[in-house]
Amino acid sequence: MVRAGVVGSTGYAGYQLSVILSQHKNVSIVFLSSHSYSNMKLSDVYGNLTGILDKVCIDMQTVESKLTEIDVLFLALPHGQSFDLVEKALSAGVKVIDIGADYRLRDYKEYEKWYGVTHKLPNRLKDAVYGLPELNRERISSSSLVANPGCYPTASILALAPLMHTGIIDNASVIIDALSGVTGAGRSANISSLFCECGESVKAYNIACHRHTPEIEQQLSDVAGDKIILSFTPHLVPMSRGILATCYGNLKKSISQNELYDLYRSYYKNENFIRITDTLPETRYVKGSNICNIALRVDERTNRVIAVSAIDNLIKGAAGQAVQNMNILFGFYEHAGLDMIPNIL
Amino acid sequence: MVRAGVVGSTGYAGYQLSVILSQHKNVSIVFLSSHSYSNMKLSDVYGNLTGILDKVCIDMQTVESKLTEIDVLFLALPHGQSFDLVEKALSAGVKVIDIGADYRLRDYKEYEKWYGVTHKLPNRLKDAVYGLPELNRERISSSSLVANPGCYPTASILALAPLMHTGIIDNASVIIDALSGVTGAGRSANISSLFCECGESVKAYNIACHRHTPEIEQQLSDVAGDKIILSFTPHLVPMSRGILATCYGNLKKSISQNELYDLYRSYYKNENFIRITDTLPETRYVKGSNICNIALRVDERTNRVIAVSAIDNLIKGAAGQAVQNMNILFGFYEHAGLDMIPNIL
Amino acid sequence: MVRAGVVGSTGYAGYQLSVILSQHKNVSIVFLSSHSYSNMKLSDVYGNLTGILDKVCIDMQTVESKLTEIDVLFLALPHGQSFDLVEKALSAGVKVIDIGADYRLRDYKEYEKWYGVTHKLPNRLKDAVYGLPELNRERISSSSLVANPGCYPTASILALAPLMHTGIIDNASVIIDALSGVTGAGRSANISSLFCECGESVKAYNIACHRHTPEIEQQLSDVAGDKIILSFTPHLVPMSRGILATCYGNLKKSISQNELYDLYRSYYKNENFIRITDTLPETRYVKGSNICNIALRVDERTNRVIAVSAIDNLIKGAAGQAVQNMNILFGFYEHAGLDMIPNIL
Amino acid sequence: MVRAGVVGSTGYAGYQLSVILSQHKNVSIVFLSSHSYSNMKLSDVYGNLTGILDKVCIDMQTVESKLTEIDVLFLALPHGQSFDLVEKALSAGVKVIDIGADYRLRDYKEYEKWYGVTHKLPNRLKDAVYGLPELNRERISSSSLVANPGCYPTASILALAPLMHTGIIDNASVIIDALSGVTGAGRSANISSLFCECGESVKAYNIACHRHTPEIEQQLSDVAGDKIILSFTPHLVPMSRGILATCYGNLKKSISQNELYDLYRSYYKNENFIRITDTLPETRYVKGSNICNIALRVDERTNRVIAVSAIDNLIKGAAGQAVQNMNILFGFYEHAGLDMIPNIL
Repeated sequence: MVRAGVVGSTGYAGYQLSVILSQHKNVSIVFLSSHSYSNMKLSDVYGNLTGILDKVCIDMQTVESKLTEIDVLFLALPHGQSFDLVEKALSAGVKVIDIGADYRLRDYKEYEKWYGVTHKLPNRLKDAVYGLPELNRERISSSSLVANPGCYPTASILALAPLMHTGIIDNASVIIDALSGVTGAGRSANISSLFCECGESVKAYNIACHRHTPEIEQQLSDVAGDKIILSFTPHLVPMSRGILATCYGNLKKSISQNELYDLYRSYYKNENFIRITDTLPETRYVKGSNICNIALRVDERTNRVIAVSAIDNLIKGAAGQAVQNMNILFGFYEHAGLDMIPNIL
Repeated sequence: MVRAGVVGSTGYAGYQLSVILSQHKNVSIVFLSSHSYSNMKLSDVYGNLTGILDKVCIDMQTVESKLTEIDVLFLALPHGQSFDLVEKALSAGVKVIDIGADYRLRDYKEYEKWYGVTHKLPNRLKDAVYGLPELNRERISSSSLVANPGCYPTASILALAPLMHTGIIDNASVIIDALSGVTGAGRSANISSLFCECGESVKAYNIACHRHTPEIEQQLSDVAGDKIILSFTPHLVPMSRGILATCYGNLKKSISQNELYDLYRSYYKNENFIRITDTLPETRYVKGSNICNIALRVDERTNRVIAVSAIDNLIKGAAGQAVQNMNILFGFYEHAGLDMIPNIL
Repeated sequence: MVRAGVVGSTGYAGYQLSVILSQHKNVSIVFLSSHSYSNMKLSDVYGNLTGILDKVCIDMQTVESKLTEIDVLFLALPHGQSFDLVEKALSAGVKVIDIGADYRLRDYKEYEKWYGVTHKLPNRLKDAVYGLPELNRERISSSSLVANPGCYPTASILALAPLMHTGIIDNASVIIDALSGVTGAGRSANISSLFCECGESVKAYNIACHRHTPEIEQQLSDVAGDKIILSFTPHLVPMSRGILATCYGNLKKSISQNELYDLYRSYYKNENFIRITDTLPETRYVKGSNICNIALRVDERTNRVIAVSAIDNLIKGAAGQAVQNMNILFGFYEHAGLDMIPNIL
Repeated sequence: MVRAGVVGSTGYAGYQLSVILSQHKNVSIVFLSSHSYSNMKLSDVYGNLTGILDKVCIDMQTVESKLTEIDVLFLALPHGQSFDLVEKALSAGVKVIDIGADYRLRDYKEYEKWYGVTHKLPNRLKDAVYGLPELNRERISSSSLVANPGCYPTASILALAPLMHTGIIDNASVIIDALSGVTGAGRSANISSLFCECGESVKAYNIACHRHTPEIEQQLSDVAGDKIILSFTPHLVPMSRGILATCYGNLKKSISQNELYDLYRSYYKNENFIRITDTLPETRYVKGSNICNIALRVDERTNRVIAVSAIDNLIKGAAGQAVQNMNILFGFYEHAGLDMIPNIL
């Protein structure tokens, strides 16, 4: 039985994580914690959990005193707020899975440039492993600090990795055009996330400057063995959950759509959370699950490949992947606690 | 007073057209017609119009006998259904504005390839003018047959024309990634358009094979003076109205974002329905209006320009543009009947 | 030309009011004002208005100095914040139309009980007229202080007034079960109004204690000539605009549905914003307009009448009705500036 | 291991049932069947199930030949289509759980009056048990034919039963005002269920004539020991899942809200799917689960009680309750396969 603590359990990702952990047969939740709702039950914030998960959220200060009682600490915090706690946890021998952004970029200067804050724990970055199991399973298994990927990067990297690995597209030609549901903006009381402000409308945002860009580039550069610079455009769409990434690359040589499918099916042949489908993905096909759907099209007119992926941003894009990483860290069956069927409706 | 007839007035575009025409001070609606709802009032189908626009829709057969009573015929039909009627209307000296797709492509073979039906009126194509006023105003003014642009093409061409005109991007590099609301699928009783099938989800569809592609390419080729082949990916998003087009091109030479804005502002300096904004477009900013919003970003990391446009697919993308074309045809103020303020909520 | 000032122009009702006034041929907007967005353009807050209504919102302090420049002051403020300004405006001879709740209840003690704040202007209440033109047109026309009705009360009172007037239902039996879109909660950054908190869900709220209850009772008591106590239950539904009120009453004597329709058609025979329809109302039938739809059903099994009404909460339930009141106050055609066609889509 | 067959597995209720059964440890699905999608995989219709539930749906004709292979037959068909098959199944000793409406009303004349079709199996009605476990658990356990309750009746009866049982309200005063998501209209390609027709709008429908009315009255009459006639008004709201029932009754004697809560908590003290909450229900609190939330308010001003309940219409209102009934029929733990946590997002 792994003893787990969750920091930031009342945000959307933290909520989802708490629910998944509460159902996980190998996990005992030692504490949930919250900044805004400390000393309240999780079910006071998420009324669906009344009678199901009524655990009281401790405050952030109390977390430190509980580090000796846990084996793994999950953090679901805004960037820049994890440093002190992560240092203490690691020093105490607690494994850390950070759902936030603080340990995803290897180069702290890149982090500081994109996030605009000082990185207080640069010396821990060399030990951090980017927690995308489909690419880094081995390194995750022996890590103490797992940097759980962002939601856009999860969808984007999984869609593009086989292409980059094979080297059949022009590395300078990659464009990722992605759509996200509104949970991606978190549970903060922002006017831009109001029902009447984002319903019945779509927009692009943070064009050419979204913070998930360097994270995608770093991982795909690893896969390609080349320095990848790409364009990434996020859009907000009026739905709660889900990410769809439509990814473009120029083919360096001719390949049929069937060959492309073979390539992907081979690359992901042992991956149970990757579902390569002939049908184009819809986010509802993966909603509520840890599954990533991927479909492919070759555009013979333009000699481009288009790879489309869909995930649930809160699960494969956050909490589910964090639990998948925990399963790897502690030697559990990688599916443990993650066999949710997508709830299309 | 122009005497107008509308064919297909109970579909979404036809409905919108009927409403706009009913408010137009220079227009008298001689007839509305409908295939599915003939002999019913328009307000029986669109309950909002009760007491406002209770005109009975005549059936398609009766339309022919009314051609002598009108000056202009609007058609809002599925592709392939306009041929007989258009021939009769033109022969009778009636000007025709077709909201459908039958006269947009100059080459009937291209039409037959993409649409999979026989073109029965190829000899009329040379006289048809692609009704995008911002590009073709002069030719529209003297035309008898206006091929009203598709919704995706309107947004895409307007976003890209200044770039193609100036020749600052690599013509082979153009990618258009576009999002559409569900009215784009029409008012047919298809399961895929049900609330529970397209709500809370997004998908890409018709990748590399959408019928609006050749139309975009034809017009941008004209602007560029070069044969343009591009990638176009449509997505369905859970909202009723609106199109957002995110368009990418590789810069052939360096240009600052400010210079790019100057270029667009100059190109569209006399266009009152084009709104160049610093802020990125949201479809709600143009909903209910004939306006097209465009914003620009230069991605210095990848040396790409990203142009984003937003329109209301039923207005600037269909009925509003049709009325704009009518205004040009008959010498009215181009804004007549089209001064609707976007209704953000 | 009436010179108008708007206080609170960046909330949803204030926004809608500003747009309607800007299109009104008899109105000159002297100032818009805002607490949260002072010194910003209205179009900075509502991007749809860029190039259309770019007027800068003055701050609240500056409003006072402008009172001498206007004929009518509109207020769209949270309750309890209007007192000082209203006193100054009235003293300066400016007519006041308050979209808020501060002057709707004749008895300041009732106000203080339901709203929990001190009424600072009780002596002005006797001069205030409840601005529901269909009931109080004459008194409105000679008033200086119009208390614009709440959204739920507008829908509820209009649905029930003919019944109460005729005395055919048991006055103790009235139940109003109403549904509201999310703009009813205002444009405040509250978590409960987030897309992900109120989308895909419905709830009842403030059962037996909603502040619109005494306002409905006061007006219906006037109509009935009897003290009315009723049940009112508001619900929040995932849409932006619209109110639907389903109203129940026990019939004291038998009446057919046709007779009931005759009664309503007669009662509202001169009202152009009331639309009595055989078809049951849908909020989309009135969205974007100043129209109130009403339909009736007699349930012979239970001997009850059910009257259902629908309005756009921001127009007939707020800004549109305020302009209707202004038209009455200044002797304009009551429809002036209010002929918007409902935009079903 | 119970061997189960499902008829009508591609409608929304049938889909949900198929998913729940596929996860149920005591059930083996012998066949799924479909009229519209026979010989297709369930996952061809519900893309979320690809790789998870790829069972091919047999056609309706083949079902008969499979009756000998199953212990229980679930039917999810439109009313009037079950008679032949149910007779054959019962004759073959197969237990039947009908999610449709054909066996809910004891009196076949009532059925024929409300549903407008001939009941072909009136002699089986005396053996049918109305499958609301909270009221009829004992009789269900020994039944061969379970008539699974409608969605509105489940929410309404559960909200009102304790009141009717106790006799503290005037039986003639009951009004049920209910809201339903769009899955309630089924997965038929009807224009009224299109995204653009039911999004951003609400309506009441079938006032005083909805077919669920007699079913509610029959059950509440049983509980009250009195003939109950009540008003029931359904509304359609723009969400996929969920029913909220707001129920009114006039108190015959004074009771405090706390006493009322005690009454309900006592009445449902052994019910694990009933959750009595202080907080008013929101449908998202029960979405995806078999739970029914109930909250209570006493309106002292009008001397009324308001009971509000929320369920997921496809689960507690259909498929989940069907499985709950199966669990009772076969002696399984009543929660088996039904421990889904409500997925608020």
